[in-house]
Amino acid sequence: MNIEQLITQLTVEEKISLLAGASFWTTQANERLSIPSVTLTDGPHGVRLSTGTNPGEMLMQTKPATAFPIEAAMAATWNEALIEEMGAVMAEECQHYGVSILLGPGMNGKRSPLGGRNFEYFSEDPYLTGRMGVAFVKGVQGGGVGASIKHFVANEQETNRMVVSAEVDERTLRELYMLPFEMVVREANPWTVMCAYNQVNGTHMGNHHSYLNGVLKQEWGFDGLVMSDWGAVVDKVASLQSGLDLEMPGPSARTEEALEAYRQQQITDEQLNDHVRRMLRTVEKIVTHKREVPAIDVERHHAVARRVAEEAIVLLKNEDALLPLSPHAKVAVLGAFAKEPRFQGGGSSHMNPALLDSPYEEIAKFADAVYSAGYDQTGSAELLEEACMLAAGQDAVIVFAGTTEAIESEGYDRADLHIPASHLKLIEAVAHVNPNVIVVVNSGSATAIGAYAAKVKGIVQAWLPGQAGGSAIANVLFGSVTPSGKLSETFPLRLEHNPSYLSFPGNVRQVHYTEGIFTGYRHYDTRKLDVLYPFGHGLSYTTFEYANLRLSSDGLTNGEVLRIAVDITNTGKYAGQEVVQVYVRDVQAEVARPDKELKGFAKVALLPGETRTVEVQLDERAFAYYAERLGRFAVEAGAFDILVGASSRDIRLSATIQFASEEEVREPLTLSHALRAWLRDERYAGQVGQVMQYLRMDEKNPMYAIFLGMPIRTIIGFLSSFGYSQEVVGQIEAMFGQSALSSPELRG
Amino acid sequence: MNIEQLITQLTVEEKISLLAGASFWTTQANERLSIPSVTLTDGPHGVRLSTGTNPGEMLMQTKPATAFPIEAAMAATWNEALIEEMGAVMAEECQHYGVSILLGPGMNGKRSPLGGRNFEYFSEDPYLTGRMGVAFVKGVQGGGVGASIKHFVANEQETNRMVVSAEVDERTLRELYMLPFEMVVREANPWTVMCAYNQVNGTHMGNHHSYLNGVLKQEWGFDGLVMSDWGAVVDKVASLQSGLDLEMPGPSARTEEALEAYRQQQITDEQLNDHVRRMLRTVEKIVTHKREVPAIDVERHHAVARRVAEEAIVLLKNEDALLPLSPHAKVAVLGAFAKEPRFQGGGSSHMNPALLDSPYEEIAKFADAVYSAGYDQTGSAELLEEACMLAAGQDAVIVFAGTTEAIESEGYDRADLHIPASHLKLIEAVAHVNPNVIVVVNSGSATAIGAYAAKVKGIVQAWLPGQAGGSAIANVLFGSVTPSGKLSETFPLRLEHNPSYLSFPGNVRQVHYTEGIFTGYRHYDTRKLDVLYPFGHGLSYTTFEYANLRLSSDGLTNGEVLRIAVDITNTGKYAGQEVVQVYVRDVQAEVARPDKELKGFAKVALLPGETRTVEVQLDERAFAYYAERLGRFAVEAGAFDILVGASSRDIRLSATIQFASEEEVREPLTLSHALRAWLRDERYAGQVGQVMQYLRMDEKNPMYAIFLGMPIRTIIGFLSSFGYSQEVVGQIEAMFGQSALSSPELRG
Repeated sequence: MNIEQLITQLTVEEKISLLAGASFWTTQANERLSIPSVTLTDGPHGVRLSTGTNPGEMLMQTKPATAFPIEAAMAATWNEALIEEMGAVMAEECQHYGVSILLGPGMNGKRSPLGGRNFEYFSEDPYLTGRMGVAFVKGVQGGGVGASIKHFVANEQETNRMVVSAEVDERTLRELYMLPFEMVVREANPWTVMCAYNQVNGTHMGNHHSYLNGVLKQEWGFDGLVMSDWGAVVDKVASLQSGLDLEMPGPSARTEEALEAYRQQQITDEQLNDHVRRMLRTVEKIVTHKREVPAIDVERHHAVARRVAEEAIVLLKNEDALLPLSPHAKVAVLGAFAKEPRFQGGGSSHMNPALLDSPYEEIAKFADAVYSAGYDQTGSAELLEEACMLAAGQDAVIVFAGTTEAIESEGYDRADLHIPASHLKLIEAVAHVNPNVIVVVNSGSATAIGAYAAKVKGIVQAWLPGQAGGSAIANVLFGSVTPSGKLSETFPLRLEHNPSYLSFPGNVRQVHYTEGIFTGYRHYDTRKLDVLYPFGHGLSYTTFEYANLRLSSDGLTNGEVLRIAVDITNTGKYAGQEVVQVYVRDVQAEVARPDKELKGFAKVALLPGETRTVEVQLDERAFAYYAERLGRFAVEAGAFDILVGASSRDIRLSATIQFASEEEVREPLTLSHALRAWLRDERYAGQVGQVMQYLRMDEKNPMYAIFLGMPIRTIIGFLSSFGYSQEVVGQIEAMFGQSALSSPELRG
Repeated sequence: MNIEQLITQLTVEEKISLLAGASFWTTQANERLSIPSVTLTDGPHGVRLSTGTNPGEMLMQTKPATAFPIEAAMAATWNEALIEEMGAVMAEECQHYGVSILLGPGMNGKRSPLGGRNFEYFSEDPYLTGRMGVAFVKGVQGGGVGASIKHFVANEQETNRMVVSAEVDERTLRELYMLPFEMVVREANPWTVMCAYNQVNGTHMGNHHSYLNGVLKQEWGFDGLVMSDWGAVVDKVASLQSGLDLEMPGPSARTEEALEAYRQQQITDEQLNDHVRRMLRTVEKIVTHKREVPAIDVERHHAVARRVAEEAIVLLKNEDALLPLSPHAKVAVLGAFAKEPRFQGGGSSHMNPALLDSPYEEIAKFADAVYSAGYDQTGSAELLEEACMLAAGQDAVIVFAGTTEAIESEGYDRADLHIPASHLKLIEAVAHVNPNVIVVVNSGSATAIGAYAAKVKGIVQAWLPGQAGGSAIANVLFGSVTPSGKLSETFPLRLEHNPSYLSFPGNVRQVHYTEGIFTGYRHYDTRKLDVLYPFGHGLSYTTFEYANLRLSSDGLTNGEVLRIAVDITNTGKYAGQEVVQVYVRDVQAEVARPDKELKGFAKVALLPGETRTVEVQLDERAFAYYAERLGRFAVEAGAFDILVGASSRDIRLSATIQFASEEEVREPLTLSHALRAWLRDERYAGQVGQVMQYLRMDEKNPMYAIFLGMPIRTIIGFLSSFGYSQEVVGQIEAMFGQSALSSPELRG
C-alpha cells in the first residue's frame, strides 16, 4: 500500500468519506482505489461481534466468543504476562471473525465506586491501570489486531456522559486521568485511541484541540488513529480541525458540512491528509497482520479465561482458616448466582459466551454440595427459609451474592453500594444457623461488605469473573489454586467517605473533580481514614516474609534509575503468589502530594519455603509530579521514602533516598511574596535582613510575626504611614525591585 | 450637619482627601468646613487605643481597657443578650477614650482549625456567626459608637492574605461566607464595613465592584461606609469606582492619582459624592452620639467580662462527675498558664487589660491549692518532676495547657493542632501519678485533645477567656457557675479529616475552597465521620430533658413562618442553662445539601426541676439554599426535617414538614438532558413515551437502560445509523424541538 500515492489519488469527497463509518461497526471502503472497509467491535472483555440490526439486537445478538473477567478483575491479578496472554487470545478470536479493531481496553479512572462502568476500567490507580493497559494492548496487537484505548479522557461517570463537562485541573488530568493513556501510547503504540463523549473544562473531547492534536499527537507522539466514541462528534468541522480522525458510527450525516468547510478553507489539505494518512496507515497495519483463523480453540481459550479469573479472586477474609475447604466437606451452596452465574456487566461489553461454567456444578465436582436459590427477584420468604434449612448442620455454607445486572451497566451509575436486600437477608439468616459462612461476592466494584463482614468467616471477592468464573471460584475455595488477587481499588467503610461523594456525578452541565489527585487510597491514606479493605489488599492460604530491602543507591538524580531488590519467602504451607508493591512518598513537597503512590510492583510465585529476590526499577517519573508552572512532570529535590509492602496499608520494609533534582519547581519570588519567603531564600536573606534591621524590625518587635506574613509590596506601602521619608521608601523599593521585579525568575 | 450642602461646598481635592486616613488611626478633618477627624481603633475584644508611634509600639502600647474573651468564646456562650450587653460596655470605653469606630467584630468563617485568626471569628457556622454579630453590633452601636464588621469577604486565612485569591463558587460565598455579613447588615445596620485584604475569584476585595457596589450596597441596601483593611487598597482608582469609600491607613500616597482619574472622567461626580456622602453620614452619626464618659467603671466591666467567660466555658469531659470540685478538696494547680494567664490572642486584638485575674489565685480562694509551673519554654525536666511530686496524693489536679502566644496570632496560620510538647508531657506525667486530672484548655480554636482525652477525667475548654478568665474558670471548676458553653466549632479527631486539609492555605496566588459549603459539621455530619467533640456540644453539671415538640404547622409555604415550641426540664440537681439547637434537613434536594444546618437556637436558664417552653421561629430563609440559576435564595418544594437537640450529633426530638414552595429550582430541560429526565417530567412523559414506543424502545429492550442515559440530541443523531429515514428523524426532532428548544424555560 503506497499511502502517499493514495492520498494524491483520492478526491476530497473520497477523503472525507473515509473519515466516517459506513455503518455501526464498519468504516467506509473505497472500491475505486481498493481501500477495504474495516470492522471494529466491542469490547474489553472479549470480541463481541454483533449480528443484530436494531438497537436491542445489536447489544444481545452477538457471535459466541470467550468472555473474560471484567477489567477490574484483570487488574486484580496484577499479572502483566497473564493479561498479555489473554490479549493474544482475544486477537485470535477477532481474526477468526474478521474483526480488525477491538474497542478496548477501557482506561478511565474511578473517582467514585458508583461509576456505572467501573467494572470496565482497571483500577483507581493510574499506574496499575497503565501497566495493565500496556499488557492488554501488547497482547491484542501482538495478534495482529488493533486495540482502541478508551475513553480519552476524564470519562469517569455514565450520568450525562454525552454532555457533561468534567472540570479538572491540569495537574490532576496529567497525574491521574491522562497517565494511563500516556503509558500505553509511549510503551505499546496502540493502533487507535477512542475519544470520550464528555467535555473537559468546557470543550467536547471530540473537538479538544489541545488534548487531541496537542497532548496526544504532538506531546506523546501518537501516530495512530483517533476515533470518536459512538456518537461523540458534536461538531464535525471542529473535530477535523482538532485532531479527531474517524467519526463513528456511520454513515455520517455531516459529510456535506465537512466538505463545505474544506471549500471555505476552514479545513486545510494538511489537516485532511493527516487524517487520511492515519486512516490508511491503520488499514495498512490491518491488511499486513490479517490472518486466517478457521476455528476458535474454545477449550484452550476457556482455560486462559479461568486463569485470569483465578488470579483475580481476592480473598478478603478467612477467619479460623476456614478456607480452603476440605474435599470431604459437606457444603451448602446458596444464592441464585451459583447456578445462573453473574459473570459480566451490561452494555457494550455484554457478550455471548462460548462456554459458561456453573459455580454450583464446579463446586459439586469437589465436594458433597447441596443447592438452594435463597433469593429471587421478589424476595421470597420461602426460598430464604429453604436455604436456612439446607444450611443448618453443613460443614460450610457458600453464599453467592452481589450486584445484579440491573445494578451495574454501561449507561448509568449506581445509586449506592448496596447489594440487593434479598442477598443481604440470605447472608444474615444463614449466618444465624451456621457459623461457617463464606460469601462469594460478584460485583464490578466495591460493595457494602461492611454490612455483613463481621457475621461471616470468609469473604471472596470474585468480581464478574467471565465464563470460567465457576471453575475458578471452585478451584480457589477448595485450594486447587491459592488466591493471589489484590484489590485494584479501595473498599471503603462508607460511601460517604469517598472523596467524590458530594461532587459525583454533578449536574447536566458540569462535574467538578473537587478532590483533585486525591482519589482512592491517595485520599484515604493521606487523610488517615479507616477503610474496610485497603488498595492492594488480598489474603493468601500461605504467608510471605519480606526481607533484605536493597536499593542500588541512596541518592538519585535526573535521568537515573533506582533498582530495588527485596527477598520474599513463602513461609506457609501452600504454594502461592505474592504481589510485592512499591510505593513512593515525597517526604516534603512544595505542593500537596499523596501520602504514598504506587510506582512499581511484581508478582512472584513461590513454593513453600522458597525464597526469591524480586526486583523493581523506578525511573525519574516515579518521583515526579506534574508541575503546572513548568508545564511538565518534574522532580522536586529532597527525600523520598521507598515503601515496600503487601497493600497500601501493609508496608513491610522501607528506606529513604535523596533525589538531587536539578529541576527548580519553586515559584519565583515577587513583591507579592511575604517577607517570610524572602528571609527563607538563601539568595536574598542577607540583603532583606539588612532592610529589616534598618526598619528596626526583628524578633523582639511584637509586630514581627505579622510583618513576616506581609508581602513586600504591602510593607513598602506602610512605610510612609510609619513616618519614613519618601527617600527612604524609594531606596527600599529599589532594593527589592532589583531582586525581584527585574529578575522574576530566580533560576534558569 | 447639612450633608448635601457640604458636598456642594467641598472642592474635589477636599473630597478626595476625606476619603483616606490622616494617620494610622484617624481620618482627615476639614477645618474650613468644620468636618472633624474620626478616631478608629481595634478591636473585637475591647477597645485598643494605641499610643505608640512605631510598628512595635503601636501594637503593644495601648490604653488600658477591659479585655473580653475572644470571639470564638463569645460564640460559645450562644447568649445574644449577654453579647449585646458586652458590646454596650465596649462602647462606653470607646466613648471614654474618644474612639468613634470600633474595628470589629470579625465575621469570617473557619475553613480550617489552623486559621491563625480563628479566635477572632465567631463560629464555623454562618448562622451562629450572624446572630452573634448582630448582638455585638447592636450592643456597640446602642452605645453610640460605630462598629466595623470585617473582613468582607472570604478572608479565612492569614497566609498570603494580602495577595491570595480565594476561589469560591457563588453558592458557597452566599451561604457560608457572605451570610453573616448579610444578617448584620439587614438586622443591625452597622455604621461601617471593612473590606478584606484578599482577592475573591481574581479581584481584590478593595476594588470588587460586584461585591461592594453590587451585593453589599445595592442588593443588601447597606448605606454605611466601606473602609479598607489597613493597606488593602491596591488600586486607588478602581477602589473608588468599585464602592470602597475610605482608604486606611493614611496619609494616602495616591491622592494625586485619584485626582487625575477624576480629571480624566474615570471617576464621576456621582461616584465621588456618594463616597463623601457616606463618609459625612458616618461623621454625623458620630457627632450625634458622642458623649462624655469621664471614667471607666473598671469593676463592673470586669464582671461583664467574667460572665461572658463563664458562659463560654465548654465542659468537654467530666468522668465520674469529678467536677464540680468540692471547696474542701485539696488541689494541685499545674501549668504556667495558671499564674501567667493565657487570656488573649496576638495581633490587632492584643490589649492592655484594665484588670487581670490569676487563675491560680482565684482557685485558691475556693480550696487548698498548691502550684507548680510544670513547664517552661525549655521543657525543663525538673519542673515536670516537681509538678508530679506535687500532684501525687491530691484530691484533684488542675492542669492549665493550651496554645502559646507564638502559636495563635493574627498574621500567620497554625502549622498543626498540637499544644506544646511540654504541656502534653505534663498532662501525661501527672495522669500517671493522680487519677483525677482536669485539663483546662486555653486556645482560640480546636487543639489535638485526642492525644490525652482518654487519660484524664475532666476537660474544660476555656478558650482565651479575657481578663476575667481566672475567676470564671474557678467559678466553673467549683460549681459557683454551672457550665453552659457549647462548642462554636467541631473538634475533629484528626486534622486530616478537615475538609480543607489538602487545600489550605493554597499558594501565593490562589486558595481553592474545594469543600464548598461542606465545612465544619456540614462536612463531618454529611460524610458520617466520627469527631472528637461535635459542633454545639457541651456538658453541664445538671441534665436536661426535651419533650413535647410542637410545630405551628406541618406545612409551610413561601413567606410563612414556622413556630417551634419544645419543653425543656432541668432534671438534675444544679441550676443551669441549656442551649436548645434547631437544625433543618432538606430530605431530598436537587443540589447537594448538608445533612443538617443550624437555623435557630435559644438559651434557657432553669432551676432544678423547673420546666420552660422554648420557642424558636424559622422563616423561609431557614429552608432555602442559594440557587445559582435564579441568582437568589430559594426553597425547593418538599419535605424538611426539623431537628431539635443539644448538639449536631445529639438530636433529641424531630418532626417533618412539607414546604409547598412556588419556586421552580429545577433546571429547564433541553435536548442535552437525558431521556430519563424527560420521562420523569410529568409534562412530557406521555409524548416522549410515544416516541420511544415508535422506536420500539421499552424496558424489554436490552439497550433501554443505556438509552435512558442518552441525551435526546444523541438519540436523534443515532436514528439514521439505526436505519430510520430522514423523514422520521425530522419528525422526531421536531417533536422534541417544540417541547424543549422553543420553550427552554419550562416555567415562568
